[in-house]
Amino acid sequence: MTAEPFSVGLLGHGTVGSAFAELLEARADAVVPITGLRPELAGVLTRSRGDFDEILERSQLIVELLGGVEPAREYVLRAIAAGRHVVTANKQLLSQHGEELWASAREHGVQLRFEAAVAGVVPVIRVLQESFAAAAIDRVHGIVNGTTNFILSEMARTGADYEQALAEAKRLGYAEADPGDDVSGRDAAAKMAILARLAFDSPVHLDQVPYEGIERITPDDLEYAREFGLGLKLIGTAERIDGGLSVRVHPAFLYAGHPLASVAGPFNAVTVESAAITEVTMSGPGAGGPQTASAVLGDVISAMIPPASTPEPSQRLELVEDVASAFYLHLEVADRPGVLGQVAQLLGLQGISVKSVVQKGLGENARLVMVVHPTLESRFFAACALIERLDFLRSAPRAIRVIEEEFV
Amino acid sequence: MTAEPFSVGLLGHGTVGSAFAELLEARADAVVPITGLRPELAGVLTRSRGDFDEILERSQLIVELLGGVEPAREYVLRAIAAGRHVVTANKQLLSQHGEELWASAREHGVQLRFEAAVAGVVPVIRVLQESFAAAAIDRVHGIVNGTTNFILSEMARTGADYEQALAEAKRLGYAEADPGDDVSGRDAAAKMAILARLAFDSPVHLDQVPYEGIERITPDDLEYAREFGLGLKLIGTAERIDGGLSVRVHPAFLYAGHPLASVAGPFNAVTVESAAITEVTMSGPGAGGPQTASAVLGDVISAMIPPASTPEPSQRLELVEDVASAFYLHLEVADRPGVLGQVAQLLGLQGISVKSVVQKGLGENARLVMVVHPTLESRFFAACALIERLDFLRSAPRAIRVIEEEFV
Repeated sequence: MTAEPFSVGLLGHGTVGSAFAELLEARADAVVPITGLRPELAGVLTRSRGDFDEILERSQLIVELLGGVEPAREYVLRAIAAGRHVVTANKQLLSQHGEELWASAREHGVQLRFEAAVAGVVPVIRVLQESFAAAAIDRVHGIVNGTTNFILSEMARTGADYEQALAEAKRLGYAEADPGDDVSGRDAAAKMAILARLAFDSPVHLDQVPYEGIERITPDDLEYAREFGLGLKLIGTAERIDGGLSVRVHPAFLYAGHPLASVAGPFNAVTVESAAITEVTMSGPGAGGPQTASAVLGDVISAMIPPASTPEPSQRLELVEDVASAFYLHLEVADRPGVLGQVAQLLGLQGISVKSVVQKGLGENARLVMVVHPTLESRFFAACALIERLDFLRSAPRAIRVIEEEFV
Repeated sequence: MTAEPFSVGLLGHGTVGSAFAELLEARADAVVPITGLRPELAGVLTRSRGDFDEILERSQLIVELLGGVEPAREYVLRAIAAGRHVVTANKQLLSQHGEELWASAREHGVQLRFEAAVAGVVPVIRVLQESFAAAAIDRVHGIVNGTTNFILSEMARTGADYEQALAEAKRLGYAEADPGDDVSGRDAAAKMAILARLAFDSPVHLDQVPYEGIERITPDDLEYAREFGLGLKLIGTAERIDGGLSVRVHPAFLYAGHPLASVAGPFNAVTVESAAITEVTMSGPGAGGPQTASAVLGDVISAMIPPASTPEPSQRLELVEDVASAFYLHLEVADRPGVLGQVAQLLGLQGISVKSVVQKGLGENARLVMVVHPTLESRFFAACALIERLDFLRSAPRAIRVIEEEFV
């Protein structure tokens, strides 16, 4: 089929960039019947080669796969100002400078698309922006970091400890040499900032998203929790609370019925809840060069057809700091009478009630593992601070949030 | 916010129609910042009230929720010819007259959107048409009928038989008074025809989709299969086979690792596979007035913004009749030596190999339950015909397909 060319300028030629260049060539023919145009690479900018101005001049659309804030921010702003559509996979950039970029895209009447920035090829961005545009979303839960989901799956499956599972993730290419942003939860926090912005139509900056990582999770926690029917995930949450908004990332237990409970290995998944839609879950590979490149190509095709934009935020929701959670609490204590009673009393003073409890003797010591009903986190941590001072405690209490909902 | 009105004509005022009318009014304000326009109902056509021509005249977009082929087909064609965008939830219409309607929409430059026709609010149509437009899809598996998924879940959960579970589904509003099209698989076949058309960009008519229902499933089958780690679903499949296409609906067992295995109750889910995307799954409520209405509203909003169309099919794939499947085979036999040997021999003659087998004595009789590796269905059914003639067989063999892939 003969068709007019559509020229794409590519910034970045790492794993995703080179996979995209390959995919674009392989699928160019398939794009023609959809768009009436044949996409082709107008130029590639790498750290050592290529000139941005020259590539911009020759391109109708810019694909930004450099990662990091600068010079990506400058290039994207200049491309937008020059009237070019932009497709990016850059979560750091969007979670810190999104409003500036979206405002500029609106001003210049160009599209800024970013499906690949969150959950790879799982089309959560498009679905939030388009399908659920008027769904009045109440909550988004996401497993949005494949590295940590692989590590936790591996710990649960094999009984390995954190360090062993991390080593295995590195060996298989699921973790980078420096996995700091992944295991600390910061990468997931950036992605949740972007999802929250879209779901709640209110500005959210990475700095407003508290996060907790998986470095301190022990095989013990996983084993005990299994007795309660719980599985552990690094969960991002964005939810409306009393007219405000809470966005956060932390490890949390899920009951087996939760749609995210069965998401294993390096996969990502996002659940969106509202009265209008009940609950919709999307899952799939969250990373990988070819998969992420595929999400980028989907955006390029959409940008070749119709206008789409991120509208100006229609509201500015307050970001809520103290939210209610159920908790798993693990205590190593001296095995003597009255221990459970004293712990329960301290919890009771904070209005916290216990849902289930397992106590195991270990010679002179005992292990007390319980799940408590949802309570304001400030109250729970206040109770923990009091419990920590009890003289029969053998080590610091370990607390992990539990997501309680069971679906269908 | 003041905004120009955008007038929507509604055909049909049943469960989904009335839910849509309510939702449109409730969410009209939220649509303004997205589209710059305020949607409002221009008129409602019911069986007894309203005049189509008058409503068409007053509307910028028509929402068709009548169901059935006529007069829905006539109204949709007339709306398109009059230059109106159309949003429909009508799977019967699209699976039988889709090409005519899509061609007409292309000719008149209007949008024909139909997210709610398949899997309710699960945004599988948009994702296939847009996100995965160039993903070179290899296969789609779907649980696209909530009634049957509820019945099978209920049978598995409680040990109820088919009639009992159907009665419970009716009581809870998950099955209609006449559930014929649901339990026979015909409803799922219509939806798979639509999904296959989009995924493979080749025309598919409902009449080309063979289907098998769940009426003959027994609690026995579910119980035995559990021993193999299998769960039963009514599965729609659309897949490329040797340059052709197979689209079909039948009950099938899934291993626990399959992303559709955990979809329980009246939920729907669709898994899309290709080299480019690996495997992406979407799940959520497949029916329900408010949820389906929400999918319709998502389409209305999209139609208010940019042009989108179903491009002309770029190919015409041959529809494949005989495909390879793994099977679960359940035999009631006389308990005498050599029975398993003779069955295995007959399977072997057709080149079929056994993966696992359980034999249980029941006094004079025995039960032989096995899973065989994938084989052409024609070969498997030929073997069954031979087995059926063996003199030690106590009742007809029961065969159910098994979906073998385990993910992650």
